[in-house]
Amino acid sequence: MFIAFEGIDGCGKSTQLDLFYDYLVKSGFECIKVREPGGTILGEKVRRILLDKEMRINSRSELLLFLASRAQLIEEIIKPSLEKGYYVLADRFADSSIAYQGAGRNLGEVVVEKLNAFATDNIFPDIVFYIDIPVKEALRRIESKSKDRIEREGENYLRVVREAYLSMANKRENFYILDGTKSIEEIHNEIVNLYKSFKPSP
Amino acid sequence: MFIAFEGIDGCGKSTQLDLFYDYLVKSGFECIKVREPGGTILGEKVRRILLDKEMRINSRSELLLFLASRAQLIEEIIKPSLEKGYYVLADRFADSSIAYQGAGRNLGEVVVEKLNAFATDNIFPDIVFYIDIPVKEALRRIESKSKDRIEREGENYLRVVREAYLSMANKRENFYILDGTKSIEEIHNEIVNLYKSFKPSP
Repeated sequence: MFIAFEGIDGCGKSTQLDLFYDYLVKSGFECIKVREPGGTILGEKVRRILLDKEMRINSRSELLLFLASRAQLIEEIIKPSLEKGYYVLADRFADSSIAYQGAGRNLGEVVVEKLNAFATDNIFPDIVFYIDIPVKEALRRIESKSKDRIEREGENYLRVVREAYLSMANKRENFYILDGTKSIEEIHNEIVNLYKSFKPSP
Repeated sequence: MFIAFEGIDGCGKSTQLDLFYDYLVKSGFECIKVREPGGTILGEKVRRILLDKEMRINSRSELLLFLASRAQLIEEIIKPSLEKGYYVLADRFADSSIAYQGAGRNLGEVVVEKLNAFATDNIFPDIVFYIDIPVKEALRRIESKSKDRIEREGENYLRVVREAYLSMANKRENFYILDGTKSIEEIHNEIVNLYKSFKPSP
């Protein structure tokens, strides 16, 4: 089973991914975590380019670099793990590109969907947990840390990204919105319940 | 005017690009040379990943990295140069992806054409000079040098790449085949004549 955690930075998705990972491991499942961009040697090199504050990157190049990293992650890690019956938990996946580049950079969400399908060889998560927080709350939470190239984009950009995420929920059955302003434990419990209702644990 | 030089490694395209560059400069034109992958800071970083002999890169990632580099080159260098009325001479461009990844890696030439159009924002060369040499001759010429990741692919791969290049000539008016086994001077003169017949110099 392939599960992605999505949301704008500061929403708490990495915390929730870790908690859900622990839950699955305790339940006796083989699990791996992957993060985007990155997760392979190639991906980590691409990640360094993408997050470099000094780098000049136009929108199409940015998207293509994310896709290059994703294609390698799919081939090298995700496909073989799924074939072995492992759970794969992804900290961001294809929907990040739809939200951040398709909507946020105005490249078009449909164009990015098509490019995603090429890059992932048509492999997509079974479930997406999108953790939603207001943009102002996200900015407050990441205020203290040194921001990378994409995080510095600011409020309007993130507002467009959030709207794009929210509109995905209307179109897709396996895309769940979690209220990121609730407590960590509450959100975790909701994720476990959604997961159980999607596919009961043995 | 935007002119690309294409061909398998060892065909002499870089030599011919340099000679044609000198010819244009002597004729009084403003000219720039670009090379793929590379030509921008982002592109040079991507180039290092692509040519790394130890790097694991699947076919789709390889293509997407080339496209990311190309998109940056278009935005940062080629578009502004063409707008200023400069000549842009490219050592490889979109057709390399069609030949090497579309045909050579079997990703499909039509798929790569579409991805090229996205990456280049639909900007393509006015003229392509393809310098053709037999694969055995190419291998003989590059034998002595330390081969990068792509050059090590060997004879069958290069045969498919060459066939793909040759088939482009049948489909496109502005795609010229030059016989790379002729002398450097002969090929240069043919290029100048083809260029003049395409657009007479002032």
